[in-house]
Amino acid sequence: MNVLESILSRRSTRSYQSLPVEQEKLEKILEAGRCAPSGGNNQTAHFLVIQKEDVLKKLVELVQNAFAKMEVYDGMYKSIRNSILQSKKGNYVFHYNAPVLIVVANQKDYGNNMADTACAVENMMLEANDLDLGSCWINQLRWLNEDPTLVAYLKELGMQTDERVYASVAIGYPETVDGLPLRKALERKGNKVTWIL
Amino acid sequence: MNVLESILSRRSTRSYQSLPVEQEKLEKILEAGRCAPSGGNNQTAHFLVIQKEDVLKKLVELVQNAFAKMEVYDGMYKSIRNSILQSKKGNYVFHYNAPVLIVVANQKDYGNNMADTACAVENMMLEANDLDLGSCWINQLRWLNEDPTLVAYLKELGMQTDERVYASVAIGYPETVDGLPLRKALERKGNKVTWIL
Repeated sequence: MNVLESILSRRSTRSYQSLPVEQEKLEKILEAGRCAPSGGNNQTAHFLVIQKEDVLKKLVELVQNAFAKMEVYDGMYKSIRNSILQSKKGNYVFHYNAPVLIVVANQKDYGNNMADTACAVENMMLEANDLDLGSCWINQLRWLNEDPTLVAYLKELGMQTDERVYASVAIGYPETVDGLPLRKALERKGNKVTWIL
Repeated sequence: MNVLESILSRRSTRSYQSLPVEQEKLEKILEAGRCAPSGGNNQTAHFLVIQKEDVLKKLVELVQNAFAKMEVYDGMYKSIRNSILQSKKGNYVFHYNAPVLIVVANQKDYGNNMADTACAVENMMLEANDLDLGSCWINQLRWLNEDPTLVAYLKELGMQTDERVYASVAIGYPETVDGLPLRKALERKGNKVTWIL
């Protein structure tokens, strides 16, 4: 699949098979993420590749607990609002039960932390699509990236003291009839272009 | 070029030929940017594609003026420091004289503005590489994205009142012997991976 084909056909996958992802494919995905550009070539992203079921369950529990304690308000960003409301009901699984979650941390005092992380995640999603894997950007761990309980647990997993989570990405085989990602291109009505000639 | 090939061979181009970029290639690059994912599928990125020489010159002047007024301090991010010091000398061209500058604005009060913009820019750089064009992420207009003079000028160009610049990207044919981008993959010593199995 060439670059533009992968870009145009990438879609968010929100339902996964429990099937594990081959190590060889994960290594290609990590290579794509690690080779993203970084501000001043700093290369300070840190990829935590989580496949252990107990760890994923624990994260689901901690994320649900954190959101359940929060209150919604008028004008709140709709996805955060949904996370809170679903967590209060006690059935919130933030990573859509994907078998792999790649958490991307970066230096908390570094001005390019979000930009560098986003480039790495985009690269990983494009490569996953090329490998017939589905993926979905996960914002929840960033929204909670100063939650003390979550920070403490992520440090147990290897996150460093000066790092925080800026994004994560769920990866796995999609729960579709053929097991392949849905690839029908989604129309862009926004993202407008102004030509200055 | 397949996805991973473009990711691994993309390099920052900091010297450009004055040759214009074909409209057909620019449209593919914009398509790549517009098809990047966005939080909640918001699609609020706004791409200002600048090729007009007078406009690029004016931006260079305004950026240099803005930096020249700033002072450096110990521990300042090195690239901002360099921008200030070069601007004070009066010879700062922040976009490396590329014939095309794509400025990406987004909603200033939207929590995913930086992440969405970064994905769009990464897509555009990967597609540019596939089309034998060089590119370079440009942070300067983001660093100055509350500078009143620059905001006013960008609004003249079409930026909306509720938008600010989160990144821009220089694009053009590289000033190399063969006119093709330098594609030797750069080793990643950082961007570490922690496997949690």
